[in-house]
Amino acid sequence: MVTKSEQILLRRIRDEATTIHKSILKGAKPSLKFPLRSLQNVSYQPKTGYFKLKGRKKERTLTVGTVKTFAQTLKMMSLSKDLVETDDIATKREAYYVSKNWAEARFNEQPESDAVMEDVEAFFGVNREQLGFVPEEKSGEIAGRLMVIDKDRDTGQNLEIDCTKFGSGAYSIPISVEHLKFRTDALFILCIETAGMFQRLVKHNYWKQANCILVSMGGVPTRACRRFVRRLADEKKLPVYVFVDGDPYGYSNIYRTLKVGSGNAAHLNEFFCVPQAHFLGITPQDIVDYSLPTHPLKEVDIKRAKDALKNDPFILHHKPWQNALETMVKMGVRAEQQALAIHGLNYVIEEYLPQKLDHVEKFLP
Amino acid sequence: MVTKSEQILLRRIRDEATTIHKSILKGAKPSLKFPLRSLQNVSYQPKTGYFKLKGRKKERTLTVGTVKTFAQTLKMMSLSKDLVETDDIATKREAYYVSKNWAEARFNEQPESDAVMEDVEAFFGVNREQLGFVPEEKSGEIAGRLMVIDKDRDTGQNLEIDCTKFGSGAYSIPISVEHLKFRTDALFILCIETAGMFQRLVKHNYWKQANCILVSMGGVPTRACRRFVRRLADEKKLPVYVFVDGDPYGYSNIYRTLKVGSGNAAHLNEFFCVPQAHFLGITPQDIVDYSLPTHPLKEVDIKRAKDALKNDPFILHHKPWQNALETMVKMGVRAEQQALAIHGLNYVIEEYLPQKLDHVEKFLP
Repeated sequence: MVTKSEQILLRRIRDEATTIHKSILKGAKPSLKFPLRSLQNVSYQPKTGYFKLKGRKKERTLTVGTVKTFAQTLKMMSLSKDLVETDDIATKREAYYVSKNWAEARFNEQPESDAVMEDVEAFFGVNREQLGFVPEEKSGEIAGRLMVIDKDRDTGQNLEIDCTKFGSGAYSIPISVEHLKFRTDALFILCIETAGMFQRLVKHNYWKQANCILVSMGGVPTRACRRFVRRLADEKKLPVYVFVDGDPYGYSNIYRTLKVGSGNAAHLNEFFCVPQAHFLGITPQDIVDYSLPTHPLKEVDIKRAKDALKNDPFILHHKPWQNALETMVKMGVRAEQQALAIHGLNYVIEEYLPQKLDHVEKFLP
Repeated sequence: MVTKSEQILLRRIRDEATTIHKSILKGAKPSLKFPLRSLQNVSYQPKTGYFKLKGRKKERTLTVGTVKTFAQTLKMMSLSKDLVETDDIATKREAYYVSKNWAEARFNEQPESDAVMEDVEAFFGVNREQLGFVPEEKSGEIAGRLMVIDKDRDTGQNLEIDCTKFGSGAYSIPISVEHLKFRTDALFILCIETAGMFQRLVKHNYWKQANCILVSMGGVPTRACRRFVRRLADEKKLPVYVFVDGDPYGYSNIYRTLKVGSGNAAHLNEFFCVPQAHFLGITPQDIVDYSLPTHPLKEVDIKRAKDALKNDPFILHHKPWQNALETMVKMGVRAEQQALAIHGLNYVIEEYLPQKLDHVEKFLP
């Protein structure tokens, strides 16, 4: 049941271990080289669309001073090997507790084990989920024209999960999505910020009318949610449209994180960004065009917008985003996606979304 | 497509409106009587297991001073009537935006519209979801031996959602669950605090081995999650076991809210509590029996435990809970459900859960 990419990973883990083992037998000092995970070792790639690690590395050589971390790194690699071989998973927290049985190599605090896990992840250049390590949090729901293909662990048989058949409910994305396959004839993926708006579109079978796949992000999307959308969009060559509140948080946190990733996890963005994402709304122009009821910007909103205009490489690279944020600050107001309800509860389905989708070329980048 | 209970509700709304209309035509002052929603008007019912409203009421008579609120209440009832008749839903936020079209009766701030909605809810003695009003937040996932029966809105046909067929994913509970029906041969419902633990049990098809239904609460369960478990447990006469972290938050927030409801929404607890819930673990005794790695209690943990011992009517009613909290404060430590991983990642499946489930009579009340 081990896939080809897992076989390759297992071989790489074994090769590293063998090299270290041989080096020790020869009486030499074994060492491991890790990419430096920090903003100084990162470049912004407008073309691929995410922060990318540059070449700098740190070296961990086995010495008296590094022996504990060195051993922990090897134990962590070994745990990962076990997980991949047995098709199991461990959360960061579980891995920390498992280490309590590593005698002198046990971790005292979870941040230590997290850091070693991230080193191993960067070392092999794969994402944590491929190593069997999964995040704690779970969120991201799907409804619409999509068949997800999973496997029954006991029988090995394919499970076809038809996301058109859940009524008012939805398919909840698992914590690790690497093994999933997809079948779809949808035209696009629509990612939605709030559970309330998602529920409205699901309740009214909006995905039928628009021939699409609906994704509920529930605020800033989790790793699993981002990875799911990315893999689906890549494999099925689908555009991704994002529908969030019209405020600096929706723009520079939710949308930006989905599209290019986050600054403090640069070694992961390659897997967890969705470069094909485009911004449907709510834009500052929508507030005017649709006469939406607004709330005044709070100080934290203004600060967030100004920070993004000054420091965010993604915003700095896209003039239309600078204009949007500057316009919003000038207007001094924000608008929620549910504000469209002023024109009737289902105005969003009957008017707003169809009108916007007629002009995808106008979407913000 | 309107159900029988919806027909009854619609008739009651029409009857109220007719009475008020007649009263106005006669030149009399119409009035509405609402149950007083406050802790002073609440009693604890050990037998039924939740805080219950006592008889006190407030009266809203149409006068110059109350005309706006009176009109808003009637408009809110009318919106609810529309929602039920058209099988639609509105979040509290959407209802607030809809009111922007009520001319002089519009709400200026959402807390005002929320309060009127809660009055209407208490007035009819039904829960908000039955009036078509749904919460914003969404959470609660299901895997295991359960068939959920929903309806396709367009065709009116039944949709049978088989929760054994989601692989590593799960069925995500909709925001409103009043219309769902169930079929199951499971022996019990297991409600789990963390998404990580839920994912482990799902990954290993634990529900097959234990013949049960798994519910991921993701922290304090949402209204939809609590209502789903309650309806399922009532209709199928299933016991509910709760598996959370061994700390005061897990005991007096997550478990207590699931079982008896919360203090500040007394008019809702009747629908949103799960009186048949029992506490599987992690208990303070488990920390000893399973030699679990612990963390010291933080000050906020100690304060929460002492508050519960002093003020929580549920804890005050159950001696075993007082003992548990006092023991924990004395031990000065807490333990997470994932701490069981110290004995191996799947110790929880192979040893802990089977051992506990052999002695459900020992579960905390």
